[in-house]
Amino acid sequence: MPTFIDKLKAKWDARKFVCIGLDADYDKLPQSIKNQPDVEDYLKTEAAIYEFNKAIIDKTHDLVCAYKINSAFYEADPYAYEAMLNTFHYILRTYPDIPTILDAKRGDIDNTNQGYVKWGFETLKADAITLHPYLGKEAAQPFLDQKEKGIIMLVRTSNPGSDEFQNLEINGKLLYEIVAENVAKNWNVNGNCAVVVGATYPEELKKVREIVGDMPILIPGIGAQGGDLATSVKNGINGQKQGIIINNSRGIIYASSGEDFAQAARRETEKLHQQIMEILKNV
Amino acid sequence: MPTFIDKLKAKWDARKFVCIGLDADYDKLPQSIKNQPDVEDYLKTEAAIYEFNKAIIDKTHDLVCAYKINSAFYEADPYAYEAMLNTFHYILRTYPDIPTILDAKRGDIDNTNQGYVKWGFETLKADAITLHPYLGKEAAQPFLDQKEKGIIMLVRTSNPGSDEFQNLEINGKLLYEIVAENVAKNWNVNGNCAVVVGATYPEELKKVREIVGDMPILIPGIGAQGGDLATSVKNGINGQKQGIIINNSRGIIYASSGEDFAQAARRETEKLHQQIMEILKNV
Repeated sequence: MPTFIDKLKAKWDARKFVCIGLDADYDKLPQSIKNQPDVEDYLKTEAAIYEFNKAIIDKTHDLVCAYKINSAFYEADPYAYEAMLNTFHYILRTYPDIPTILDAKRGDIDNTNQGYVKWGFETLKADAITLHPYLGKEAAQPFLDQKEKGIIMLVRTSNPGSDEFQNLEINGKLLYEIVAENVAKNWNVNGNCAVVVGATYPEELKKVREIVGDMPILIPGIGAQGGDLATSVKNGINGQKQGIIINNSRGIIYASSGEDFAQAARRETEKLHQQIMEILKNV
Repeated sequence: MPTFIDKLKAKWDARKFVCIGLDADYDKLPQSIKNQPDVEDYLKTEAAIYEFNKAIIDKTHDLVCAYKINSAFYEADPYAYEAMLNTFHYILRTYPDIPTILDAKRGDIDNTNQGYVKWGFETLKADAITLHPYLGKEAAQPFLDQKEKGIIMLVRTSNPGSDEFQNLEINGKLLYEIVAENVAKNWNVNGNCAVVVGATYPEELKKVREIVGDMPILIPGIGAQGGDLATSVKNGINGQKQGIIINNSRGIIYASSGEDFAQAARRETEKLHQQIMEILKNV
């Protein structure tokens, strides 16, 4: 089986850098997808969310380097949860060359993390997971031991208040820089680590790229959150003009609230893809 | 409805400080509980875990200040998950005066956290949740806004490698001290915050108590992890000789692997309770 990094690199070699965040919220889905025929009432939520994700995947699979699913959008409702699980399995079954990222932001102590390892990689069958760094490498070891999986550490998050702790200064370095440094130098024994830096912090992105070498950087925050694409691409790429996973969620999946939502999602994905191609021409 | 803090203070006033961590792992359950009569095969896991938790709760409810459930032990298996949900609901229904803590260590950006708020407090109906501080107060706001719930921030975790980031020094203060300080001074507008400090770090516990005033401190790490009880109690209590939630999981729930597991759990809980009473007499 190809590893997360293998799958990702193959997509980068094919010049694909867009990641779609499949953060489906039932209340925001087009009315058309909620009217599933031949589905029992109690399964309507599950069917609508799954069919919504599936339609977007089927229309965009040739344009992306990865799909990211944030489990916060699915965990509160058991039917939404089931749709999340089925979405992961659908991608693996239908487009096994596309890596999937479980954006779950977990992080517990050593032996307890085994439960999340099993959940993310056996139950959901994701290729990668996002994690909080606060407990240190020793606690994250059960994740780091999964050689074939991507272990993506939060370094500089896209939210406005991320500086509260992430920008604290320690002997001339900021906390997020130390997290990036430790992940790059000490945590990445199996070559399976990656980091998250928000597009809303382009200078920090540049700094992190210098620190982590060729390591993949997952970059959320384009679009609704206001991150600038050109600066993110320029500051995020590695020496091979690769290394970036540019995520957009709402801007793509809710591009249209009509029956044409999947077509609209493709149009927005294509647009983002083309913009990245243009930017890469000039770097 | 009484808040998390109200429920907890009532238990403290009744001189109860033990929290049982209901971290049920199917593979470790006594054989006797796995042989549920009249249960369909496919429901055996769910029934065994639920009946295990229920038996321990029924035997210990008069001795504890809280129950803590770490969701990592339940999320990988949908039947275990259902048992977790039913355990939370059982406590709320049967012993509504006992606060429940969902030890989920979540933490996402602002709008995304709404999903976890709904999950923890509407679906599972927990009274409190544990969170990672790394994204800052602004991101945690949807949790902090839940006035009646307990928002328990990880400050100094019990694992051996927690010093990697938590002990970094910033202008003469350590990171975990700054986290504790910010939570106490800026995050606790609704008086619903608490912090986690491992019993494995007694000096840090003392320091955090000085920083957070009367705020509740959840103290894991007694027992299997090696934390010393007497020092934890002495260094953890506040001015009213209260303020501590002393958690033990494995030492209580797996005290016996025989049919007498619930009785053994009570015996260990009683022992821990009495030890705490003795220690408190001498402070």
